[in-house]
Amino acid sequence: MDNKTRMLQTAMKAKAAAAVIARAATTDKNRALLILADALESQAHLLTEANTRDLASAKEQGLPPAMIGRLTLDAKTIRAMSAGLKNVAALPDPVGEISSLSQRPNGLMVGRMRIPLGVIGIIYESRPNVTIDAAALCLKSGNAVILRGGSEAIHSNLALGGLIQNALVECGLPADAVQVIPDTDRAAVFELLQLEDYIDLIIPRGGEELIRAVVGQSKIPIIKHYKGVCHIFVDSEVDQPMAIDICLNAKTQRPEVCNALETLLVHREAASSFLPPLANKMAAAGVTLRGCNLTRQILPMIEEATEEDWHQEYLDLVLSVKVVSGIGEAMEHIEKYGSLHTEAILTESYQNARRFIKEVNSSTVLVNASTRFSDGFELGLGAEIGISTTKLHAFGPMGLEELTTRKFIIYGNGQVRT
Amino acid sequence: MDNKTRMLQTAMKAKAAAAVIARAATTDKNRALLILADALESQAHLLTEANTRDLASAKEQGLPPAMIGRLTLDAKTIRAMSAGLKNVAALPDPVGEISSLSQRPNGLMVGRMRIPLGVIGIIYESRPNVTIDAAALCLKSGNAVILRGGSEAIHSNLALGGLIQNALVECGLPADAVQVIPDTDRAAVFELLQLEDYIDLIIPRGGEELIRAVVGQSKIPIIKHYKGVCHIFVDSEVDQPMAIDICLNAKTQRPEVCNALETLLVHREAASSFLPPLANKMAAAGVTLRGCNLTRQILPMIEEATEEDWHQEYLDLVLSVKVVSGIGEAMEHIEKYGSLHTEAILTESYQNARRFIKEVNSSTVLVNASTRFSDGFELGLGAEIGISTTKLHAFGPMGLEELTTRKFIIYGNGQVRT
Repeated sequence: MDNKTRMLQTAMKAKAAAAVIARAATTDKNRALLILADALESQAHLLTEANTRDLASAKEQGLPPAMIGRLTLDAKTIRAMSAGLKNVAALPDPVGEISSLSQRPNGLMVGRMRIPLGVIGIIYESRPNVTIDAAALCLKSGNAVILRGGSEAIHSNLALGGLIQNALVECGLPADAVQVIPDTDRAAVFELLQLEDYIDLIIPRGGEELIRAVVGQSKIPIIKHYKGVCHIFVDSEVDQPMAIDICLNAKTQRPEVCNALETLLVHREAASSFLPPLANKMAAAGVTLRGCNLTRQILPMIEEATEEDWHQEYLDLVLSVKVVSGIGEAMEHIEKYGSLHTEAILTESYQNARRFIKEVNSSTVLVNASTRFSDGFELGLGAEIGISTTKLHAFGPMGLEELTTRKFIIYGNGQVRT
Repeated sequence: MDNKTRMLQTAMKAKAAAAVIARAATTDKNRALLILADALESQAHLLTEANTRDLASAKEQGLPPAMIGRLTLDAKTIRAMSAGLKNVAALPDPVGEISSLSQRPNGLMVGRMRIPLGVIGIIYESRPNVTIDAAALCLKSGNAVILRGGSEAIHSNLALGGLIQNALVECGLPADAVQVIPDTDRAAVFELLQLEDYIDLIIPRGGEELIRAVVGQSKIPIIKHYKGVCHIFVDSEVDQPMAIDICLNAKTQRPEVCNALETLLVHREAASSFLPPLANKMAAAGVTLRGCNLTRQILPMIEEATEEDWHQEYLDLVLSVKVVSGIGEAMEHIEKYGSLHTEAILTESYQNARRFIKEVNSSTVLVNASTRFSDGFELGLGAEIGISTTKLHAFGPMGLEELTTRKFIIYGNGQVRT
């Protein structure tokens, strides 16, 4: 069977399963999640066997150690996936929630009821734990999902997919509600991306190149973020020890993730007292600074930041630093070079905190806290399926609610329109 | 200047204006709406002059009377536009509204603030009043808008656009926040639809052909509905006089609109008593019925409904009728032939009302009321920019809130992530 026919069959099965899973009882969905959580641990040998095959070919192909680390399923990562499933089972079910119910002057009771989106396609890179996380969130929110992970994790993903489908069937839910695509070539993904009559949403997770390729090939709605060029603006009135802690945390706690700090903007009145101690701490943490001319007057040993640096998502222990005349210039810089992801102001000024929160329209805006909090778990969503930096449907970290929509429900007693 | 360059300039001006209008004070936005409301009436002669030119060429081209009716700006339609502006001015401003503000265990205060989408492109057909309605809703919700109406209304739309820009400038707001495109050829629209870096959302309003053309040409997110094949299911336990009133209202009050009834599904136990009096009333209202075989056993004089009829959005005094075995078959028919727009159940059964509301996932689902209530004003949104039958971002009638999104706002006092 050719790619096109197989992907069409996958999508048709997903759509049929979506109609069933949309109406599934919360108890059945939760039971499947808990059975799966147990199965991951009791069948761990199956997973590590499959993972060993992926790791062997990854080493053969000479993949970098960081990528091999992300690919590895060991007792610890399996325990973490199992715990994640139990967390999702414990979250409230968003489906069926009624809001804004009120009476119109003619007696109609009008409200909105939350319903699943339908069929979601998730296209992601090496981490096999995404297979479990994404399946759990889609199942809990009543959606069917088609999962297409990276070719380097194919055996691990198929083994996980098998356990997921067993758990679904054990609870009387359709196995096709979670399908892992066995194809590893890009031609199959392309065919999947054409099926707009069957798939309601595509979420690509991975590098900018992967995401641009998906966007370029599909007419299905896509929720995405290309990159996170996150900024912190250190104001003139600021608690400097707090600011140093926050900047260090934002840059170094996990430099490889999208909510890490990439560009630091410093008020010129704070620069001469703030930058030297910051530079010492950053150097001790292994961070290379690149600065504008004013920064280099204070820190002459650092490299010059070029125009390219201001656009850069380093995902590494590198930080660009710019001295600005005040909050106005800081916000202009963010507007010009930012990626609508996450920005923070560190300030003791009530006026500037209020202005920054109001006028910076990135998906997450913080006062006196680390950019690393831009995350579904940290913000209280209970889970995270991804982060959106496009404004339609969802903006910022996305949890269960963002995998649903709301229909209007109307209770009448004979009303006609006049 | 070629189309591409001109459209790019339009979009760049809109994006610059969007940054200003997003931060505009509610009082300034409302003042502009009220100044415009007055200008429409005091400058009515300008509008009717421009409209006369459109009407003359419409008659020359032999456009049908219904289309000429929709194109006409007279004292009454101008008064209605002016009243509409005053209504929008009186609605609450959605921008800046903070919701879900609560404290995390680490002391972070996390909430969401409503912000505009940015630049919205609206592509529509003959009615010049859409120019005013759409401009008003986009302005109130802090968005810049690019309006491209039908070529047959070009003089009317440009005259309205002039008055809108005057009102903006008088209130210190950027004229480019509302731009009416002077082009009447489709090549210019095509260029506009390519500008995904400048335009955040496209809303096409008009016939299915227009909407499919827009969807086929753009990668910008689009909110749309292709058609409204709306159903009413008349259950076995039903207040029959009420059901007749509702069906008549849904079919005949405005047969040409998308929330009008197109297919009636009748429980077989109600059919023999319900269909004859309904058919009499429908005939008196000029409605032609087309029925399934079971329907024609009760109403032998009517035409047979073909497979094509069940897919049909008549937008006319025609109604297809099918007798079904119960709520299950009714919901299967809706799932197969429906357009996710609006469906109603007429019933005295608590169980069936509950089941229909829960399981039918169209954008508006009603019990014992006319499908004609699927409308932003009727549902209490205060206004309507369009109706979405796609589930991403908005589903159903869209008001001011649907022209905005929400960013995360976080107030900390030094929190770092561990």
